[in-house]
Amino acid sequence: MKLTDIYWHLRSDISKIEKELEATVDAKHPILKKASSHLLKAGGKRIRPVFVLLAAKFGNYDIEKVKQVAVPLELIHMASLVHDDVIDDADLRRGKKTIKSKWDNRVAMYTGDYIFARAIEMTTNCNKPEVHQILSDAMVEMCIGEVEQIRDQYNWNQNFRIYLRRIKRKTALLIAVSCRLGALAADAPRDVQLSLYRYGYNVGMAFQITDDILDFVATEKELGKPAGSDLHQGNVTLPALYSMEHDEELRSFIMKMIKGDKPDKKVMKVIIDKIKASGGVDYSLEVSDRYLNKAYKELENLPDIPAKDSFYQIAQYIGKRKF
Amino acid sequence: MKLTDIYWHLRSDISKIEKELEATVDAKHPILKKASSHLLKAGGKRIRPVFVLLAAKFGNYDIEKVKQVAVPLELIHMASLVHDDVIDDADLRRGKKTIKSKWDNRVAMYTGDYIFARAIEMTTNCNKPEVHQILSDAMVEMCIGEVEQIRDQYNWNQNFRIYLRRIKRKTALLIAVSCRLGALAADAPRDVQLSLYRYGYNVGMAFQITDDILDFVATEKELGKPAGSDLHQGNVTLPALYSMEHDEELRSFIMKMIKGDKPDKKVMKVIIDKIKASGGVDYSLEVSDRYLNKAYKELENLPDIPAKDSFYQIAQYIGKRKF
Repeated sequence: MKLTDIYWHLRSDISKIEKELEATVDAKHPILKKASSHLLKAGGKRIRPVFVLLAAKFGNYDIEKVKQVAVPLELIHMASLVHDDVIDDADLRRGKKTIKSKWDNRVAMYTGDYIFARAIEMTTNCNKPEVHQILSDAMVEMCIGEVEQIRDQYNWNQNFRIYLRRIKRKTALLIAVSCRLGALAADAPRDVQLSLYRYGYNVGMAFQITDDILDFVATEKELGKPAGSDLHQGNVTLPALYSMEHDEELRSFIMKMIKGDKPDKKVMKVIIDKIKASGGVDYSLEVSDRYLNKAYKELENLPDIPAKDSFYQIAQYIGKRKF
Repeated sequence: MKLTDIYWHLRSDISKIEKELEATVDAKHPILKKASSHLLKAGGKRIRPVFVLLAAKFGNYDIEKVKQVAVPLELIHMASLVHDDVIDDADLRRGKKTIKSKWDNRVAMYTGDYIFARAIEMTTNCNKPEVHQILSDAMVEMCIGEVEQIRDQYNWNQNFRIYLRRIKRKTALLIAVSCRLGALAADAPRDVQLSLYRYGYNVGMAFQITDDILDFVATEKELGKPAGSDLHQGNVTLPALYSMEHDEELRSFIMKMIKGDKPDKKVMKVIIDKIKASGGVDYSLEVSDRYLNKAYKELENLPDIPAKDSFYQIAQYIGKRKF
């Protein structure tokens, strides 16, 4: 099953959001316009808008209202990707050239700023102060997460807690907020909003851990970048953390080999194989499953509507996704 | 007369804003906290909060309400400075090390994002939707201005219109918005808000043109960076634009000598002297005066309260400031 099959019934509303995304980043300025639409065309799963739409089904669903939350959320995600690519010094994302490689770091920085500002501009149409509060809090936390990622880069002694807190800020929070804001925009009851928030948080954690696993187990073709890229850039994720904790020799080898210079594919392959052999991937899958189980549990308390099934299926999909 | 003398009577409210600025950027995260307070301590004229406070005097002045507009405006300005320093590759600002030189470009980018997000977070306390709209529109325009600055860098054929539009977006708009939002936060009448907006726009244009003049006529000590830095970084401002338009030889010389490599002080001195000799500075002063006169004219329609005098004095100060 493909992810899009799960939310096939939302396709017409998603295409409305897609149109709104295009209209929103459409700038008078040619460079910004090109950079933004380059980003839009690169696609993406639009998973945040999907969460918003599904969550809104638990209230009085009105696509016009829900759109005003879904579009800014996706824009904030897009802007953070642009800024990430500056940080990660990434030339490719989803197999396409990044803005920073097609133009330069400065254009990437301001395109990110521009998309952020557009997102904020759009939320001003929404007359629920709580939406603004939740969204801006999430943005603050995301920035802290980004700075933590810089601080923790090439830090081979970080513990699991630091990793989990970082991915919470970087990924899980915005998914949790997507669920909550969808429900809020549709005036769903407060306990439903909070259940959906926790569902989103747990699914988001599992999503990011899976992403971090795939960086070791997927192929270069599937990833659109060489396997092991995270580790190579000093971004220490769960599989590597676990393996280094259980294999001192591997820890020394990684610390010796990875210092931020050009990737050596053969060395990376050795490291990846050792991480797999020492159980780093299996352990991470377990942790991801634990989060998914918590996500399922949150769904139990919610009313039985079709959107609940879709939420189940998305969680299942994340548990099984291959890239 | 010093600028601070003009708004001496506002000092207690300004110190409230200063405290609020500190409290707002105070982050749990050590790097962000250090970077933000480094920035705060570097000071600055806090000219935007001053405009907000003075404009609010034309309505029902309540510092608690006005603060909610003044602090985000200054934060947005600060955030844009941090991102500017990445772009300008500047190591010093106001004689102090920039965040990007004390840490690195990536920390500077996310510190900027963090301060932006904090600004947005704070505006959510303000229950006037118009405030959000005006502020986010200004942020969008500022981003466009920044990208234009990148596009126009080392472009020796740009015309005055392009320069003026760029400084409008980069500087004048946020000052105009400061005036307008101060009046709006204090529920001043709409025509007063709009007069103050236009006053702020004209003063802001004069302010930036003066800044661009000072880059050629002030000393390295006064500027906190070598004279001619703007031109050297390919940022073509009004004095240089005028001189190149009236002196083909000088244009060729500048185009030949300035190509983004290390500054040669002797060559810069020759260029600066030639720009002065060909009337670039005098012409720019005239243009600045034209904007200041428009600013004075806007004030004429406003009620005669002490804040109006302060606005006059600020405009006069900008016309005379030496650094």
